[in-house]
Amino acid sequence: MAAVDYDLVIIGAGPAGLTAGIYAARARMNVLLLEKAVPGGQVLVTDWVENYPGFPEGISGYDLAEKMRVQAVDLGLKIDTSEVHSLNISKDSKEIVLKDKSIFTKALIITSGASPNTLHVGEDKFVGKGVSYCGTCDGPFFKEKTVVAVGGGDTAVQEALFLTKFAKKVYLVHRRDELRATKILQERALGNDKIEPVWDSIVTGLDGFFGLEGVKVKNVKTNEEKTIKADGCFIWIGILPNTSFLNDSVKTDEYGFICVDETMQTSVSGVYAAGDVRDTPLRQIATAVGDAAIATLSAEHFIENN
Amino acid sequence: MAAVDYDLVIIGAGPAGLTAGIYAARARMNVLLLEKAVPGGQVLVTDWVENYPGFPEGISGYDLAEKMRVQAVDLGLKIDTSEVHSLNISKDSKEIVLKDKSIFTKALIITSGASPNTLHVGEDKFVGKGVSYCGTCDGPFFKEKTVVAVGGGDTAVQEALFLTKFAKKVYLVHRRDELRATKILQERALGNDKIEPVWDSIVTGLDGFFGLEGVKVKNVKTNEEKTIKADGCFIWIGILPNTSFLNDSVKTDEYGFICVDETMQTSVSGVYAAGDVRDTPLRQIATAVGDAAIATLSAEHFIENN
Repeated sequence: MAAVDYDLVIIGAGPAGLTAGIYAARARMNVLLLEKAVPGGQVLVTDWVENYPGFPEGISGYDLAEKMRVQAVDLGLKIDTSEVHSLNISKDSKEIVLKDKSIFTKALIITSGASPNTLHVGEDKFVGKGVSYCGTCDGPFFKEKTVVAVGGGDTAVQEALFLTKFAKKVYLVHRRDELRATKILQERALGNDKIEPVWDSIVTGLDGFFGLEGVKVKNVKTNEEKTIKADGCFIWIGILPNTSFLNDSVKTDEYGFICVDETMQTSVSGVYAAGDVRDTPLRQIATAVGDAAIATLSAEHFIENN
Repeated sequence: MAAVDYDLVIIGAGPAGLTAGIYAARARMNVLLLEKAVPGGQVLVTDWVENYPGFPEGISGYDLAEKMRVQAVDLGLKIDTSEVHSLNISKDSKEIVLKDKSIFTKALIITSGASPNTLHVGEDKFVGKGVSYCGTCDGPFFKEKTVVAVGGGDTAVQEALFLTKFAKKVYLVHRRDELRATKILQERALGNDKIEPVWDSIVTGLDGFFGLEGVKVKNVKTNEEKTIKADGCFIWIGILPNTSFLNDSVKTDEYGFICVDETMQTSVSGVYAAGDVRDTPLRQIATAVGDAAIATLSAEHFIENN
């Protein structure tokens, strides 16, 4: 094999990437973790985590991410801030193309996560001026304001509940007539005086001059349109894999999530995927850490045998 | 469906079972967790855990198990101390036979774990004080120490090689005069300066006062006995699934571990397995919690749809 810079490179420092880093550093592998922004991933913007086993009182997403980062770094993991542009992984020595240079590795674990879907109704114009994908980040700016929350899954309902800590009123806009979220969350949301569901409805536009002033919604059964006067609009309508650098280098499913076998290996030998970016039945911190432990063991065996 | 006592019963309260309990209780399911002994499973006897993400300083196995138990119970999980004798799960209403009675459930998650085969030379006394069954877990605690590794299969040889990253010397004790492991692993082990094979030998005793100090071995051909001075003794002579109650009710692999699909469903609809008891490529706390989160979501969907 041609000379490599690392035995293992991990792309993305969410819970999956940090777990892979913990296992790899502990196994004394020659490993580098690449993160384009701040370690922690989506967990960073998660207000409160109460279903990651080991924290009976719950823990803020920020604190949990930071604990994982410190654990990995203390075990010797090197984390570089760098965005991956593309991959050339058809040869044994796998090339990872960064902005200014390429690095070469024997094995690769992709843990680049996933990002929230957007409504495509011109919300870009209002991001930071009323539109947000993160209650934790922006909720506190909406004290005693009226906000619209869009979506019906766990994240949407959990975040809508969080918003009630600040907002005086939360309209929960969902395109169906019942929520998809876990029952306990549904009960909490529908029993909360500040939350008013807007059933069978989609967002068709956003109004405002300097900042957001109203959210246009259409009832998909009656076609009736109305504008909800609101200072904020929080959007939680699904997620997309963060795989712009992939360019068909590994096999993905119809939504772009990376297909893996039970050892977390992708369609390319020596290349693994773990966490939200893979074709998993569930995207949770618990599943990300499980995936990543398996992926790292698999990568370790691959490196030993090649 | 005939009347059931519970929507979901979970068998075994290690990390997988407690995680399933956390998810199920949070989803307000009518759920019972059965544990024959004390909640915690093998983690209870794990001295120190430093690769479960979220605990930068590490945590004792006992404390981690207790945190998971408290978390589950605080979320409303009911845990009963009861041993499962057998299962009748061919019908929709699944029967779990206990000592004095049967209980009936719509869905079932088996998280009964696995147990390492033991040498029966009094190693219980030294577990967490030098004796270990997991190199990935405990290898890093033996930096510059001398250790004995027992076994000759793939796991034993792979783990012995892993130990050379930390220990200054690894005696590999095997009862035959050649290893069973894959040739490439054999070659690597026998070519490794730190590994010294001790052929035709069995462990007959363990020495030490507070912690392990020596491993007694006997050559089965010459009957010669000697004591190897060692700080650690890693035993890899097989692992057995805790499935005495199964009686072929679900499909298992050749070693008795339960086969599951990617949703953690077994060969029986509505019956799931998670953690060490399933046919997993890796047995860790991280993988147990990941499996269990998926199994519980799958069980929840099954219950909703049946």
